[in-house]
Amino acid sequence: MSDEKIWPSRRGFLTGSLAAGTALAAGTVRAATPDPLITTVQPWASELGEPVDAVPYGMPIRFESHVVRRNVEWLTESPYSSINFTPIHALEGTITPQGCAFERHHSGAIELSKSDYRLMVNGLVERPLVFTFEDLMRFPRHVMTAFCECAANGGMEWGGAQLQGCQFTQGMIHNMEYTGVWLRDILAEAGLKPEARWIFAEGHDASSNGRSMPLEKALDDVMVAFFANGEALRKEHGYPVRLVVPGWEGNMWVKWLRRIGVYDRAVESREETSKYTDLMKDGRARKWTWVMDAKSVITSPSPQAPIRHGPGPLVITGLAWSGHGRIARVDVSVDGGNSWAPARLSGDVKPKALTRFHYDMTWDGSEMLIMSRAIDETGYVQPTKAQLREIRGLNNVYHNNAIQVWWVRANGEVENVEIA
Amino acid sequence: MSDEKIWPSRRGFLTGSLAAGTALAAGTVRAATPDPLITTVQPWASELGEPVDAVPYGMPIRFESHVVRRNVEWLTESPYSSINFTPIHALEGTITPQGCAFERHHSGAIELSKSDYRLMVNGLVERPLVFTFEDLMRFPRHVMTAFCECAANGGMEWGGAQLQGCQFTQGMIHNMEYTGVWLRDILAEAGLKPEARWIFAEGHDASSNGRSMPLEKALDDVMVAFFANGEALRKEHGYPVRLVVPGWEGNMWVKWLRRIGVYDRAVESREETSKYTDLMKDGRARKWTWVMDAKSVITSPSPQAPIRHGPGPLVITGLAWSGHGRIARVDVSVDGGNSWAPARLSGDVKPKALTRFHYDMTWDGSEMLIMSRAIDETGYVQPTKAQLREIRGLNNVYHNNAIQVWWVRANGEVENVEIA
Repeated sequence: MSDEKIWPSRRGFLTGSLAAGTALAAGTVRAATPDPLITTVQPWASELGEPVDAVPYGMPIRFESHVVRRNVEWLTESPYSSINFTPIHALEGTITPQGCAFERHHSGAIELSKSDYRLMVNGLVERPLVFTFEDLMRFPRHVMTAFCECAANGGMEWGGAQLQGCQFTQGMIHNMEYTGVWLRDILAEAGLKPEARWIFAEGHDASSNGRSMPLEKALDDVMVAFFANGEALRKEHGYPVRLVVPGWEGNMWVKWLRRIGVYDRAVESREETSKYTDLMKDGRARKWTWVMDAKSVITSPSPQAPIRHGPGPLVITGLAWSGHGRIARVDVSVDGGNSWAPARLSGDVKPKALTRFHYDMTWDGSEMLIMSRAIDETGYVQPTKAQLREIRGLNNVYHNNAIQVWWVRANGEVENVEIA
Repeated sequence: MSDEKIWPSRRGFLTGSLAAGTALAAGTVRAATPDPLITTVQPWASELGEPVDAVPYGMPIRFESHVVRRNVEWLTESPYSSINFTPIHALEGTITPQGCAFERHHSGAIELSKSDYRLMVNGLVERPLVFTFEDLMRFPRHVMTAFCECAANGGMEWGGAQLQGCQFTQGMIHNMEYTGVWLRDILAEAGLKPEARWIFAEGHDASSNGRSMPLEKALDDVMVAFFANGEALRKEHGYPVRLVVPGWEGNMWVKWLRRIGVYDRAVESREETSKYTDLMKDGRARKWTWVMDAKSVITSPSPQAPIRHGPGPLVITGLAWSGHGRIARVDVSVDGGNSWAPARLSGDVKPKALTRFHYDMTWDGSEMLIMSRAIDETGYVQPTKAQLREIRGLNNVYHNNAIQVWWVRANGEVENVEIA
């Protein structure tokens, strides 16, 4: 485990806090002014709660009703071809619950039953096949955790720090544990012809959202998934079947998977050429930029998650990920990048999956410029915004993996800012 | 990764199925009788689905409404001091979603806000302390996955195969990724006196559910947790704060954590002596049997998850776990224990956490007695029911970790049975 480091200022917690006059060591402080929450019997300690037959399937408690997906109305022309954002500022650990994981659809989230479901495999195969859902469940199943990031995550930042809130700035991402079957096993069942080089994946929804993918990736780690975080995929995540394409941009993860065509070349459909290409400084556009480079973001404190206490111990936390493999290290700076110190990587560090980091510090109560920097196992270092703009200019939309800067004010409020 | 084994009968999938006359290679079979789901445009392919602003926090799709917690009314006198069961027969992977993870309370699930929350630490400490929720969030946070199993899981099986359904028989278990702070860090803040040997943990609910725990465990891997599977604990799982006691029986995982008392001996409260002790054959009772021994169960096929297809490829899957560490191996038998073969361990194999196993076979369509056997990293082998009864008799309630047997009939239906 990488998070075994002992917290450095253990004994300073109590004494430091008292000296600073905070309510941290509450018992000691409150001994003089009794706390009715401690000294009197409260209703929850004297009345029955909810019985076990009350809620067959539970939802978050009402006090957490702010921890939800949110969309930005002006960002897209229609909410049917649009995106919303994961409340990453309020989450912890590495798993993203399906209920609040961001959605992106091109013609809305469709409702498709298992009995109505079919998967067709055709094109350059020996045996064109149609599978029912039950057929797919008879292939060997595997379990894999992977992050899914929209290529446009952080896209508004190309032109400057435009959105307040970690959720809106970097929330087009989620991380789930999937169970399904390898796409390569399904392709082997159909039998690839020697000239096969690409696949083209389509969804059952009206947009069909067709995407070309080199056969090399399709035969590597691409999963035809049925379950996420232990249960069936939710409707908005592609029930009953979606593609999981580890490390690659989210638009490749075709939902409500309808067809895998096998070809000798890329199809170059409208959506994979008119969009999801990277406009460069000189007006030309890069295409086939599928892999999501190493990136990280501090989720708390952040614009929607201000510091709600005074000086003393402060936990900085965030997420890091790389489409190229494992995260090797995350550095944190609290002085605008003048100095950096390594954060703890907490829990699992899996390839192509979100990694949680924590940085424990003593805050003196003055303002800070906080930022995180991911380094992945290939040695790649997350760049600054200036470094990215040097090559790609200001008019890009996709693949912004630049270091995100938050300005923490002395009152604990946090703002999205840029630094020179 | 331990699940890289290539499925042995790959090419037999198609040809074998066709020979057996099943609809497995559906495309080939259906070429003669066109499938309208393939040949005509369906509503979900021609109409808009749900927009991104429709569901801020999602629930499972209506087709999965059977995948819910269920309770057994006659099992307890009141639903306020009772238990329900995780639908493990319908889940996959390793994570249990909070929404359908089993609940056990002694006086109902209470609603307690973060602002009303307090944690008291007293007894044999240098500085008795009271923490607010915000105080606790200032300790260094850690991430850990752990299974939580009720000591009574499978308890009805002591007297015979009494309940139909994997959910009801073995569903008092869940597995989540927790984020919180080490209890040892909180105890260090209060300062343990030299004579401290035990802690006593109490909840905010009316039952208070007090539990004694040796200090050695409290200082080892016990977590004071705030988040599960990435988001805040749900109300029924102890919002805003619960204990996580890896590998130990579920009743120690005190929810709505109110107080940690430190003592030189065990408190021996009513609930930890009148219940949660193990009645032996000779009428005496064992106490302090906290660790959950290695165990496994096949979740599908199982009584609520029959085989819905004909002979040919069949996926057997299940869960294995050990309170003593990692699962080393899971064996599967399809002939009532005469012969065994190792299953694949899919995805992560973490200590004191659920491990998913898969066993891929070709079913000839005849009846089977299927069972799984877990072996943990200490070398301990999951026992048979007969072996357990030899020592403990038939009147026990707790700590049944015996091998579970399912009878698969030729029509695919599955029953809970005992074998001699």
